[in-house]
Amino acid sequence: MNEFEMIQQYFLPLTMGRKEAEGLQDDAAILDIPEGYDLVISSDTLNGGTHFLKKETPAHIAHKALRVNLSDMAAMGAQPLCYQMNLAFSQFPDEEWVKGFSAALLSDNEAFGVFCSGGDTTVAEGPLLVSITVTGLVPKGQAVKRSTAQAGDLVVLTGPIGQAAVGVKILLDVLEIENSEAFLEAAHKPTPRTTISDEICKYARAAVDVSDGLIADLGHVCQTSGVSATLELAKIPFTDETKALVDANVIAYEDLLTGGDDYEIAMAVAPENIDAFTAEAAAKGVGLSVVGVFKDGQGLEVVDENAEALAFKRPGWTHF
Amino acid sequence: MNEFEMIQQYFLPLTMGRKEAEGLQDDAAILDIPEGYDLVISSDTLNGGTHFLKKETPAHIAHKALRVNLSDMAAMGAQPLCYQMNLAFSQFPDEEWVKGFSAALLSDNEAFGVFCSGGDTTVAEGPLLVSITVTGLVPKGQAVKRSTAQAGDLVVLTGPIGQAAVGVKILLDVLEIENSEAFLEAAHKPTPRTTISDEICKYARAAVDVSDGLIADLGHVCQTSGVSATLELAKIPFTDETKALVDANVIAYEDLLTGGDDYEIAMAVAPENIDAFTAEAAAKGVGLSVVGVFKDGQGLEVVDENAEALAFKRPGWTHF
Repeated sequence: MNEFEMIQQYFLPLTMGRKEAEGLQDDAAILDIPEGYDLVISSDTLNGGTHFLKKETPAHIAHKALRVNLSDMAAMGAQPLCYQMNLAFSQFPDEEWVKGFSAALLSDNEAFGVFCSGGDTTVAEGPLLVSITVTGLVPKGQAVKRSTAQAGDLVVLTGPIGQAAVGVKILLDVLEIENSEAFLEAAHKPTPRTTISDEICKYARAAVDVSDGLIADLGHVCQTSGVSATLELAKIPFTDETKALVDANVIAYEDLLTGGDDYEIAMAVAPENIDAFTAEAAAKGVGLSVVGVFKDGQGLEVVDENAEALAFKRPGWTHF
Repeated sequence: MNEFEMIQQYFLPLTMGRKEAEGLQDDAAILDIPEGYDLVISSDTLNGGTHFLKKETPAHIAHKALRVNLSDMAAMGAQPLCYQMNLAFSQFPDEEWVKGFSAALLSDNEAFGVFCSGGDTTVAEGPLLVSITVTGLVPKGQAVKRSTAQAGDLVVLTGPIGQAAVGVKILLDVLEIENSEAFLEAAHKPTPRTTISDEICKYARAAVDVSDGLIADLGHVCQTSGVSATLELAKIPFTDETKALVDANVIAYEDLLTGGDDYEIAMAVAPENIDAFTAEAAAKGVGLSVVGVFKDGQGLEVVDENAEALAFKRPGWTHF
């Protein structure tokens, strides 16, 4: 397999036959943006030297690289449309690798309704780098930002927190547990919440995707919006498997709340909208959790059943 | 300087204060695409290990990385709008490097009317990689493709060929000449022909930017359009300095025609449009050259004054 064959056989099918990509033969892809929509555009590079770990398969890498970008679209309330993919290989890959990588992308293209619009490949000493730039559509003027949360808004999550953080610890060999499947799956293959992009656009006043950890990312929302937030630990959704690890003192809540890689969406939602939003999200298979409230002031705290603020070891997570 | 300071001080100004980039604070940039336009999108990665050479400064790298992407926009007849930039550093850069790199981008942003809409940075063992994904606008349905040249169309170039090929040979130390400035400048700082994007859109039936060499790139136009082309050597524009090197047997026409990195636009233009196109391009400071004609059949040949086809050493350049 040479570069031409790699592109023809494995990457060309990722255009899903869409005329916009012109069979990857032109200098650029041509996108017809429907009237009444804004385009949203975002990039994320996965760095084989830091983000990936040796146990990850080509399929894991493909899923993660694409899905973290799709997650950014969900956070904006946007429907993803297509993506450019720039690959830097440490050496020209063998065909098995490319087969696994492209098959995973193809399956995600189908699952999330996107296509590859172009990109390039290069070979450079160093780890594998996968840079994806995703474009999506959102009704004009309706993109959801981080900086628009208001005091009184509810803090809402699209799913459980902390599974991926446990998965990453297992992959890093700092944690060893039985039945690690669900945790590894969460780390390898996050679920971008694009299923409810339209509902996020309709109901969320502000949003962010949880990539750096719930506390850090929600902190950005507070900071840019000029508000504070109080979260109730008892309301934050954790899976039973995750809770069992906390109960067994294998992991602390702090690790789950600051671990990152969750790719759930954390949102500010006006109280009057929460019932409709919850019902419409549930109809699409996504369960929302109200975990706290935005308030006037600065900072972010997580309180336990006795309304006592959790003390986090690392400074900067609770206040900034 | 840490990463936050690098972004705030040197990369944030590259957004040119455009609200679309949201101060690089959101999950994505938001672009308002005017009615009646298609979006065109293209990516190119510059690989420090292959495309760059040790003599290139941070400014050279910045100019080249952005300009080769802008050139793709010109080839589509599109006005560039903005770009995502993904940087992989071999190690965290020193401030002088970032200062030179970002100053060159800032000056090109101003020169070409574009802004940085986002991106990311990572550190990975290996050479510097600069992936840029540029987006541009073209009147709906009017993007210029490679595959639409017709027999009878003229082969038209936006400027001289071969200067950059000489420059690259100098940088690679395979050629040593006096007065190398103009050649090095051509290699370091190509001129993307976005000045006449609107005219290319209006008058070119097909177009490609010359990155891999005139023969190879025009070959793609022939192949995808199902036509052949005959170029007249005497009509192909070379600068006086370049011609002097050929006359002195320092370099051969073959090297110039196949060397690449020219970033001029090679086009198919209907004969009835050439006068108006030439006049309008000249009014914007770009001199067009008619260098040949597209014909029925297959292949690409370059003929001398005696109508004899030049014999190129490497097969595959004249026929495919």
